[in-house]
Amino acid sequence: MKVTVSRKAHFNSAHRLYRPDWSFEKNDAIFGKCNNPNFHGHNYDLTVSVTGEIDPETGYVVDVKILKDFIKSEIEDAFDHKNLNVDVPEFKNLNPTAENIVVVIFNKLKAVLEPNLELSVTLYETPRNFVTYSGD
Amino acid sequence: MKVTVSRKAHFNSAHRLYRPDWSFEKNDAIFGKCNNPNFHGHNYDLTVSVTGEIDPETGYVVDVKILKDFIKSEIEDAFDHKNLNVDVPEFKNLNPTAENIVVVIFNKLKAVLEPNLELSVTLYETPRNFVTYSGD
Amino acid sequence: MKVTVSRKAHFNSAHRLYRPDWSFEKNDAIFGKCNNPNFHGHNYDLTVSVTGEIDPETGYVVDVKILKDFIKSEIEDAFDHKNLNVDVPEFKNLNPTAENIVVVIFNKLKAVLEPNLELSVTLYETPRNFVTYSGD
Amino acid sequence: MKVTVSRKAHFNSAHRLYRPDWSFEKNDAIFGKCNNPNFHGHNYDLTVSVTGEIDPETGYVVDVKILKDFIKSEIEDAFDHKNLNVDVPEFKNLNPTAENIVVVIFNKLKAVLEPNLELSVTLYETPRNFVTYSGD
Amino acid sequence: MKVTVSRKAHFNSAHRLYRPDWSFEKNDAIFGKCNNPNFHGHNYDLTVSVTGEIDPETGYVVDVKILKDFIKSEIEDAFDHKNLNVDVPEFKNLNPTAENIVVVIFNKLKAVLEPNLELSVTLYETPRNFVTYSGD
Amino acid sequence: MKVTVSRKAHFNSAHRLYRPDWSFEKNDAIFGKCNNPNFHGHNYDLTVSVTGEIDPETGYVVDVKILKDFIKSEIEDAFDHKNLNVDVPEFKNLNPTAENIVVVIFNKLKAVLEPNLELSVTLYETPRNFVTYSGD
Repeated sequence: MKVTVSRKAHFNSAHRLYRPDWSFEKNDAIFGKCNNPNFHGHNYDLTVSVTGEIDPETGYVVDVKILKDFIKSEIEDAFDHKNLNVDVPEFKNLNPTAENIVVVIFNKLKAVLEPNLELSVTLYETPRNFVTYSGD
Repeated sequence: MKVTVSRKAHFNSAHRLYRPDWSFEKNDAIFGKCNNPNFHGHNYDLTVSVTGEIDPETGYVVDVKILKDFIKSEIEDAFDHKNLNVDVPEFKNLNPTAENIVVVIFNKLKAVLEPNLELSVTLYETPRNFVTYSGD
Repeated sequence: MKVTVSRKAHFNSAHRLYRPDWSFEKNDAIFGKCNNPNFHGHNYDLTVSVTGEIDPETGYVVDVKILKDFIKSEIEDAFDHKNLNVDVPEFKNLNPTAENIVVVIFNKLKAVLEPNLELSVTLYETPRNFVTYSGD
Repeated sequence: MKVTVSRKAHFNSAHRLYRPDWSFEKNDAIFGKCNNPNFHGHNYDLTVSVTGEIDPETGYVVDVKILKDFIKSEIEDAFDHKNLNVDVPEFKNLNPTAENIVVVIFNKLKAVLEPNLELSVTLYETPRNFVTYSGD
Repeated sequence: MKVTVSRKAHFNSAHRLYRPDWSFEKNDAIFGKCNNPNFHGHNYDLTVSVTGEIDPETGYVVDVKILKDFIKSEIEDAFDHKNLNVDVPEFKNLNPTAENIVVVIFNKLKAVLEPNLELSVTLYETPRNFVTYSGD
Repeated sequence: MKVTVSRKAHFNSAHRLYRPDWSFEKNDAIFGKCNNPNFHGHNYDLTVSVTGEIDPETGYVVDVKILKDFIKSEIEDAFDHKNLNVDVPEFKNLNPTAENIVVVIFNKLKAVLEPNLELSVTLYETPRNFVTYSGD
């Protein structure tokens, strides 16, 4: 019996969407007000979902406390109250769009989770805009 | 890397569930209080999800502003503050159940989105009742 | 010790904002798309709050089951899956704006609640627009 | 056209996570504060999703009133305001983790739904922890 | 300039509504299914609001970290994953209705907050039932 | 009959809590991770509430479209996708704590609303931290 276990988390960050190899005008045409050179920010909400067999001993697919600790050490400690462009190494050369952020989060969590667990990550940039990546 | 990008929207409409080729009694037996001849209404909440490859140039699967504009022109402008049965041509001969509405919304958006993007639409009729259609 | 006890409820209705003694043009100028002659509708969410002393016998200010039953008999049964303009007598000659609806709901509940309980009613017309009336 | 119809419900229960064949110390090490011998509790939120073809006669995949009644008779009446460990037979010998509860709910609903409908159940133990089972 | 600063928190507890000096039948008549002798439970959500002058030095009425720590030490550590009737001394002789719980929480927080801060506490027993106490 | 009409809005901004006349160490001791020199950010949610008499002509206390337009011109256009410390003149010499932001918003809206309307503003910095100012 494969069950999906999901845990919500969040972090608050500043970011700016732009490419340094483009002119300000081109960045402005593509990224609009997200290209503010002084940054803007979001309360990012995160849902991390892992799928696997229920352990008949414990009745758990994964101990949520362990999942919560991984999310804290890998994601919240790295991203919360940070400027994604300036403070987070993964975005030094990667535009921190929601799509790119969710792939980075997926890869960081995939590296520490048991390999037999399937992973899917949903990231809310605002309550009305969100993205999902499942490793496909 | 295929990522799903979702955008929420909403519209407020009146509707009535019934078939004109059935008696009032049969409509009443099947559709209950949703068959009120004077209509009732809902705040419909909509989640539109498109799946595709991240464009390495922009870091976007789709520009959410473009998605938002399509939802406005195709769905909100057509359905918001309308009577679905009376004002919306698609429901002149189609009972506006949540299931039928979500298929109509899917088809209207599918027609304007880039063909390589996969589409899924979820429609909340109330906070506790919702339907999803993905073109299957 | 005075405590406020609140109960949420909801009803789904059609309505139209207009005055029959005004021209369509004037109604349109004031009420915009809410003046659609074929009606539109909402999922109205309601919070009913009553304030009073805790009964030392029961530990209740009011039995929430009784409050829930009053909301059902006085408000939900009267308004749910109805057209407020056509089906609800209170709005035969009263424009069903959120402000007028919340006053009608307050008065209907005030008439059946114990007179020593203070009452406040909040009505959400949409998740982003709401009104509150406390009898002042 | 296959559409998924979802209905939300909820129940409020007490439970305790432990195995009677383990020592208190081992239960404590695995289940932490969820192993309180005097129980703790949750407002469980449930989303039941059924997928099938739209009936062209009614425009329904399933009448939500029927789905709501099944959820009430099979789940809410059995679990609400109960102690899952003590009052619910399915958990007499099964640790009531969220994973095990969602499988029990799935099996109880699967037994009464039309066999051609696909079923998926999501159970929120808290607003931040939830599990999903689809019969795989 | 007096501003109100609010912080949300939560705890998950079992409880039972009854009076030991009443017969089971009388408890049943008054408290219904909340009188289950084996307990039931809730995810209680809490909003703690303090009102005071903005400190011109810091721009804070109160440091939310300090408020959060008080809520943790006084309320969450005492109530979370506990049986209110059995594990929490304040309810040994006090029926743990939402009204009585919110007064207990208010008094515990009032005792540790700076005396010049006004306090109001709202407690959600379920998403649809909640109570507020402000010390009146 | 005085009714309160509320409208929700939101803006996404970067900010940093610090005083330039304090050492980095003192800012760090008081403002913790909110003192990140590279900024962090939030999705701020705003509830603007105005109280006044119902106009018997229209059934409105205030036309919500007008209220929405004021919130857009005075607050959203000024704060959204901005760095509060760098881009918004009101915070050039004022630490953008939630308390100070809500007072600035109140004053900007009070200046454009009809003087007979009472005003109250609630600002959510995160879903769990919020502040309210009513001009007292």
